[in-house]
Amino acid sequence: MTSKVNISDTTLPQGFSAAGVRCGVRRHRPDLALLLSKRPAVAAGVFTQSTCQAAPVLYSKALLPADNIKAVITNSGQANAGTGRQGKKDNQTMVDAVAQSLRCTNTQVLSASTGVIGEPMQIELITAAIPTLIANLTHQVDRFAQAIMTTDLVPKTVYKVLTLQQKPVIITGVAKGSGMIHPNMATMLAYLLTDVQIASAQAQQMLQDVTNNSFNMISVDADMSTNDSAFFLANGSSGVVLDNAQDIKTFQQALQEVATLLAKSIARDGEGASKLIEVKVINAPDEMFAKNVARSLTTSPLIKTAIYGQSPNWGRLLARLGMARVPSKLFAKLSISCQGRLLYDQGEPVLRDRHILKNSMQADTVMLTVNLKSGQHHAVAWGCDLSEKYVEINARYLT
Amino acid sequence: MTSKVNISDTTLPQGFSAAGVRCGVRRHRPDLALLLSKRPAVAAGVFTQSTCQAAPVLYSKALLPADNIKAVITNSGQANAGTGRQGKKDNQTMVDAVAQSLRCTNTQVLSASTGVIGEPMQIELITAAIPTLIANLTHQVDRFAQAIMTTDLVPKTVYKVLTLQQKPVIITGVAKGSGMIHPNMATMLAYLLTDVQIASAQAQQMLQDVTNNSFNMISVDADMSTNDSAFFLANGSSGVVLDNAQDIKTFQQALQEVATLLAKSIARDGEGASKLIEVKVINAPDEMFAKNVARSLTTSPLIKTAIYGQSPNWGRLLARLGMARVPSKLFAKLSISCQGRLLYDQGEPVLRDRHILKNSMQADTVMLTVNLKSGQHHAVAWGCDLSEKYVEINARYLT
Repeated sequence: MTSKVNISDTTLPQGFSAAGVRCGVRRHRPDLALLLSKRPAVAAGVFTQSTCQAAPVLYSKALLPADNIKAVITNSGQANAGTGRQGKKDNQTMVDAVAQSLRCTNTQVLSASTGVIGEPMQIELITAAIPTLIANLTHQVDRFAQAIMTTDLVPKTVYKVLTLQQKPVIITGVAKGSGMIHPNMATMLAYLLTDVQIASAQAQQMLQDVTNNSFNMISVDADMSTNDSAFFLANGSSGVVLDNAQDIKTFQQALQEVATLLAKSIARDGEGASKLIEVKVINAPDEMFAKNVARSLTTSPLIKTAIYGQSPNWGRLLARLGMARVPSKLFAKLSISCQGRLLYDQGEPVLRDRHILKNSMQADTVMLTVNLKSGQHHAVAWGCDLSEKYVEINARYLT
Repeated sequence: MTSKVNISDTTLPQGFSAAGVRCGVRRHRPDLALLLSKRPAVAAGVFTQSTCQAAPVLYSKALLPADNIKAVITNSGQANAGTGRQGKKDNQTMVDAVAQSLRCTNTQVLSASTGVIGEPMQIELITAAIPTLIANLTHQVDRFAQAIMTTDLVPKTVYKVLTLQQKPVIITGVAKGSGMIHPNMATMLAYLLTDVQIASAQAQQMLQDVTNNSFNMISVDADMSTNDSAFFLANGSSGVVLDNAQDIKTFQQALQEVATLLAKSIARDGEGASKLIEVKVINAPDEMFAKNVARSLTTSPLIKTAIYGQSPNWGRLLARLGMARVPSKLFAKLSISCQGRLLYDQGEPVLRDRHILKNSMQADTVMLTVNLKSGQHHAVAWGCDLSEKYVEINARYLT
């Protein structure tokens, strides 16, 4: 196996095409995006765990996993959540218009939306733009990646090529998300596309597994969205069939790598963020506990603001571990490090000079490690700092 | 019964005195505070649920409830949390110094600390100031209220007088707290003082009950502290014994009123806050669920920033209800209102003109009501908006 990862290459796997155009819901930016697979693709999806789910989430969820998906239509600017019966109709109208233009059945078309919640859809603008959208399909994903953005500052694409069975296999990942990440307004959407052939049940399991260690381990603001969706489409165009354990393992590792890079790019592009925060919890008694503790540290406003200000207030880490219900007795054992520097160990503060810590926090990635010394399970979570800009973006959105 | 509440009167109940001085831990502000009861008082306490608890929390918790408490010593600027063995020694030194000066036993002295976590205590400054502190005891609580403040902008005192058994009974409440409220750096401390006579077990139960509907229903930043403490001291100096159901009920209502006013004053004085947010969840299937949903709305950064910006982005309320796991089927039933204006009802958006909502959000208190229409339980939670100032305060604290 040879392998290459590129985070700016926007080439799609064989048999896929994509487009992004402006239909007019958003004032100045592209806001309607389409993915098309030449052959019907196996498709899997994972969705928000919110009990309040947008119309496109309810719709796509009901169709997946599937083995005959042709297209995914995505609009940005309006989330089609909290929109009642009319919202469901509008989603169906959007899907039907795509199916009709592509000459496939409507159950072969998935949908996703992102934007303001509770706003009625400007569905006429969307349906009117679909012919133009189709006319703009190309083998590049960059226009698509731009059209799904809301408050994102940068488009997020990852391209990876690996060789399986002497043939090149491509995985292209595209995502958006910047706020309401823990996944509001902005929401997280991800699309993982590949040209291998795989069974739908296996695709579903693989997507769930990679999501658990990537998209489920990021938080921008601890607000969960009505619209989060991650799709995995595999169309078999490479001629490679994933039919043996070694190839499946190799492919899943590559898919995990793509998903993790996308997840980190979402955290780094968090609304108003200036730094990526990476939290490792190591030697925990079980994996779920390690994940919960890691996620808890990424969601503390006090830790996030301290990191933004490069303020060496490491006691906030300790406080957060107490809030995350790390057993009392472990505080006499555990250690906490920041940027590789030990701050607290075995019940005692270690770092006496806060300025050393402050200087190390100037880096654009801040790494925190909590060693629980009580097991063999590890977890990594990603988040971002909290700046005045986050407040500015979210206080003034809509107005 | 006659009753009067005053939120600026700083008089103490009979038999209590208080003082606040600057010992020098903080640069320009008073930072050491003492409460004294002439007679030994019945005392109860409730403390942070964090698994990482400050030395004074562990110390005071072990002593309470009690029926012979003479004093409470409180320092601000250093939290004495994450300070290891030395921290425990320092707390004991502080307590012993007070006991010695007051000529009581050290188990008659409670302690509380608030400030930076993980900083070694400047215990010599504290012990040296204790004689001055005692020399400054008065029947007013204002100096005490100032000396316990950290990032608080205003001291928080509530005074209430009621008549029981033809005699005047006083309840004085003092609190501090502005950040790490959900209760960080700042922490919440509350002191409820009264001159009735009450058994210690009953005092403990009463404090737990009133805390559940007051201090446990506020959030500034969803960060839980290592140091939160609420104390209730009753010294019997009024001559009124709480020995019948009617008087107990009347007194508990008054105590609840004082605690609720203090809790709201903490939320309103949240770091960087410009508005108080009051969330009512009504007609819920059970009380704990109502409380959890109410608290969840007060902790959403997206709701908090929208309220700060007077941005009528009510879809964020809906999204948060989904994150709080309101059962899916209830979204077809429930209603959401802001400032008495219906926004969403029975699965459909109701308010079409967001500008009407925007105008109503100019008030300095924003009231949100969620009617779940599925039971008879209600809850109220309080929080505050999230401004650039919160970020500024917490990014630059320490530096």
